[in-house]
Amino acid sequence: MSRMQKNERIGVITQILTENPNKIFTLTYFAELLSSAKSTLSEDLDIIQEIFNTFQLGRIETISGAAGGVIYRPTMGKEQIAKFCEELCSLLRDSKRVIPGGYIYMNDIVYSPQISSKIGRALANEFYGLDVDMIVTIETKGIPIALMTARALNKPLVVVRKEARLTEGTVIHMNYISGSSKRIQTMSLPKRSIPKGSKVIFIDDFMKAGGTVRGIIDLMKEFEAEVVGVGVFMATAEPENKLLDRYQALLLLDHVNEDQKEIHIRPFH
Amino acid sequence: MSRMQKNERIGVITQILTENPNKIFTLTYFAELLSSAKSTLSEDLDIIQEIFNTFQLGRIETISGAAGGVIYRPTMGKEQIAKFCEELCSLLRDSKRVIPGGYIYMNDIVYSPQISSKIGRALANEFYGLDVDMIVTIETKGIPIALMTARALNKPLVVVRKEARLTEGTVIHMNYISGSSKRIQTMSLPKRSIPKGSKVIFIDDFMKAGGTVRGIIDLMKEFEAEVVGVGVFMATAEPENKLLDRYQALLLLDHVNEDQKEIHIRPFH
Repeated sequence: MSRMQKNERIGVITQILTENPNKIFTLTYFAELLSSAKSTLSEDLDIIQEIFNTFQLGRIETISGAAGGVIYRPTMGKEQIAKFCEELCSLLRDSKRVIPGGYIYMNDIVYSPQISSKIGRALANEFYGLDVDMIVTIETKGIPIALMTARALNKPLVVVRKEARLTEGTVIHMNYISGSSKRIQTMSLPKRSIPKGSKVIFIDDFMKAGGTVRGIIDLMKEFEAEVVGVGVFMATAEPENKLLDRYQALLLLDHVNEDQKEIHIRPFH
Repeated sequence: MSRMQKNERIGVITQILTENPNKIFTLTYFAELLSSAKSTLSEDLDIIQEIFNTFQLGRIETISGAAGGVIYRPTMGKEQIAKFCEELCSLLRDSKRVIPGGYIYMNDIVYSPQISSKIGRALANEFYGLDVDMIVTIETKGIPIALMTARALNKPLVVVRKEARLTEGTVIHMNYISGSSKRIQTMSLPKRSIPKGSKVIFIDDFMKAGGTVRGIIDLMKEFEAEVVGVGVFMATAEPENKLLDRYQALLLLDHVNEDQKEIHIRPFH
């Protein structure tokens, strides 16, 4: 291949970093791929860093030292998140979403690849500083946003099942009480899926009293693992006192008025 | 903002296209974002197209006409897919993956954001030419790869549940017979999730006889929708005659030898 021009190098580096969030690439990797000197690549990365800042595309960070290199974090600014949450609220306030029983239809939102990807970015935003080994969720509706959070943070995803599956080998199976309905539920996870001492972030689509999160915290204790962060797409305003103190959320659901078909919802922050 | 340089424009356009697969952006969009003339942008896009080709990063296509613009398809070449499938086989042949009953532990693979993203790209590869409205999967293990396929194709994802959920409104609930175990299973989907006349692609992690796919085809008939494509991560060699004629797969499972703890698996193509 003939010698590459600066704009070609910048295109290739930008594509690879964007496609692989939160993954460290060494300068040597790009130097070999693009047959370029590291000093040249450093200049290219300065330009990429600047345009990502200017156009709010996330953050390019260079990490020095032996294990160093360059990493792309798909962060969002506070204003970007606020604007996105307002857009979500507008989508969700549609009266056609009210379901008998006071529920909200939101499958189309949490399953959308474009929206779930952005939800994942927004939830991941709070966790870049944490030392984390994996993302945990519970089936079913939280899986897409948990996967997209895991993608942004570049961590494995573990999915807790509500029934034991013998096709997944030896499992730890546990009962827990849902915080709002006080019903007994079960959760089940293959023994091999979480190594001892792991630090995990729990991601889910919806939280009312926090019973499921308490159940996950207990389940993680069985694995000698620790929940170091909790992020949910939507939390309810009531009960105000959740079964856990600290969690991240994007939206706060005040109330669903079934008769008037009104959904009262607002950004969490 | 001062006038942008060519390499800055190429960085921004590359980032936005990569982050939004299979979505058409008009030249007017980029012209306004980057305060540049369309003729200049056309030259930029030629360069981006060339480097994506050279480095096998997918395909940049320009679509002419009133609804025209530029689109990024995260395609993979035949050799790239073959190499990826070989890597997956190497991962899967590990004797520790054999589970009593002749099953294979592959949660870590199908739930990994990096791997599922690549599986989604590889499965989507076969479907860019099709006129499709949405991607359908059935809970639970197929959801991540189905979401990533939907992301590559930029289509909504619909997840069929195995139990009716009253929190999702009126559902169509159906029994079907699994092709290999001959057991009665149920599937359930909110009425509003698929409009009449929709064309869908069904994506799943595993296919043996094809009973689940048959069930999905019947369920889609209830919605007056049509399954126009089927893609699975792994299909079994036996039974050779599946309940459907045409499907895409990445891997072919010949046999699991429980005593010897051997998994005989190979790329499907």
